[in-house]
Amino acid sequence: MNNIVCIREVGLRDGLQLIRSQLATSTKAEWISQQVKSGFGEMEVTSFVPAHILPQFFDATEVLSMASCLDGLCPSVLVPNLRGGKLALGAGAKKINFVISVSESHNQANVRCTTEKSFQMLKELITESKEEQNVSVTGALSTSFGCSIEGDIKQRKVVHFAERMARLGVHEINLADTVGYANPLSVKSIFTDIQSAVGGIPLAAHFHDTMGLGLANIFAAFEVGVTRFDSCLGGLGGCPFAPGASGNVNTEDTVGMFNSMGIDTGVDIEKLIEVRRLLETWLPKEKLGGNLIKTF
Amino acid sequence: MNNIVCIREVGLRDGLQLIRSQLATSTKAEWISQQVKSGFGEMEVTSFVPAHILPQFFDATEVLSMASCLDGLCPSVLVPNLRGGKLALGAGAKKINFVISVSESHNQANVRCTTEKSFQMLKELITESKEEQNVSVTGALSTSFGCSIEGDIKQRKVVHFAERMARLGVHEINLADTVGYANPLSVKSIFTDIQSAVGGIPLAAHFHDTMGLGLANIFAAFEVGVTRFDSCLGGLGGCPFAPGASGNVNTEDTVGMFNSMGIDTGVDIEKLIEVRRLLETWLPKEKLGGNLIKTF
Repeated sequence: MNNIVCIREVGLRDGLQLIRSQLATSTKAEWISQQVKSGFGEMEVTSFVPAHILPQFFDATEVLSMASCLDGLCPSVLVPNLRGGKLALGAGAKKINFVISVSESHNQANVRCTTEKSFQMLKELITESKEEQNVSVTGALSTSFGCSIEGDIKQRKVVHFAERMARLGVHEINLADTVGYANPLSVKSIFTDIQSAVGGIPLAAHFHDTMGLGLANIFAAFEVGVTRFDSCLGGLGGCPFAPGASGNVNTEDTVGMFNSMGIDTGVDIEKLIEVRRLLETWLPKEKLGGNLIKTF
Repeated sequence: MNNIVCIREVGLRDGLQLIRSQLATSTKAEWISQQVKSGFGEMEVTSFVPAHILPQFFDATEVLSMASCLDGLCPSVLVPNLRGGKLALGAGAKKINFVISVSESHNQANVRCTTEKSFQMLKELITESKEEQNVSVTGALSTSFGCSIEGDIKQRKVVHFAERMARLGVHEINLADTVGYANPLSVKSIFTDIQSAVGGIPLAAHFHDTMGLGLANIFAAFEVGVTRFDSCLGGLGGCPFAPGASGNVNTEDTVGMFNSMGIDTGVDIEKLIEVRRLLETWLPKEKLGGNLIKTF
């Protein structure tokens, strides 16, 4: 890809976590396929978690398998622990996103172990992944900008966690604002610090729009050199284990912002809006958000 | 005021232009009074336009008179021409905001004359205002970031208009993104250029949230030194003579963004949210927007 900015759709993972509607596997396949046609090169397509915890992802293996066949798509999957990581490897995953919360309390609530244990599992997963060809393990740092259980998160702790992930050999570090506490100045500060600390490892940003600051935060991160952003079509999303979490920053609006600035994302906005309209028909009971859609 | 940032509520002017509900004068008085108690030092309280064009402002003189009695408030009024300016002066206005569109077509649609005629009237108004004590005339440049009638607006034309306003002696220049076409990069570019061109005259920004970029644009302007921002409680607003214009950037979310960055606006957010809840009862037929309100 030669796009300046890469927007990674996480609607099929983060977007499905909080909603009650159950998407059929065939609908997920259609969603991925259509969004790839609109120009998306990266999508987080599922999560390898126990189905009794998040039944939306019962079909993780099947969805990943289908997504892996699509030309032009690098599908990633989220895993909360080593067991999920092994399942993902077994299912042929080529990009595995391992999540650790900077907040000890949120890590316990979200993945049910200490952060120390999470780091041990990440280390083992990276070792195991090296036995496969072309697998990259990326690290997501949840609650990097604050936690609704634990409160403030010290920036130096986020930097420390990012350094640990870098030393273990992750291929990318994604700072996630799980609840929506980031602001443009904290975004610039933390990404600048982490860039200095981890050198050339690509950084990505994952914002929620709880306070309406999602796009302002993306712009702020872009200003300090971040070019990889997560977002959800229709502004779906939220963590079921983070009280107060609301939707992710909206994909259409994110593409629209970069388009208006003349910065290439590789996405055809007209086609993307068609996918968004399809999403409305697939999830008729869900309230979708966004501004750009109102102008089409 | 010692606040770093001044947020000017324009809900009683821009916010009422497009809606069908008619607010009683006593309700406007209550709105202004309550919002001043939440910490607002500036509010645009009305518009001196013919009542047959915008009946919402039939009570302009009365509203201004009431607002002028409130301790701590500097009420401003919008005027589209010399006649409105004289009415405002006669009603005792101390801050008169004279609007000219950078787009010739929008100026014709909005104030029904050429921009050349508008500049002549602004000149006369400034001359007349000097006969009164402590009156400041400010200039608003509509369609500074694009026009839904005329299309692109050249940045050098906006700079040229700002220079003309500066030479005439306006006390502040407000760049208005009438339809919502601004993006964070264009905002930084244009404000930087105009600061160089007009020297120490205070600049203000007026954004609409059509594409969801309102807060990102405010942050971008703040980064290049702008500290005066218009916004509308509940995200009301829109120009009746600019096709496609939607609501202004939301006041609560704007205050919330600066609060989260630790930048003082002088506003008590809890009290402001109470005013926003009152607004819902005053305008039960209007759809109000905003993110922060959902977290209270």
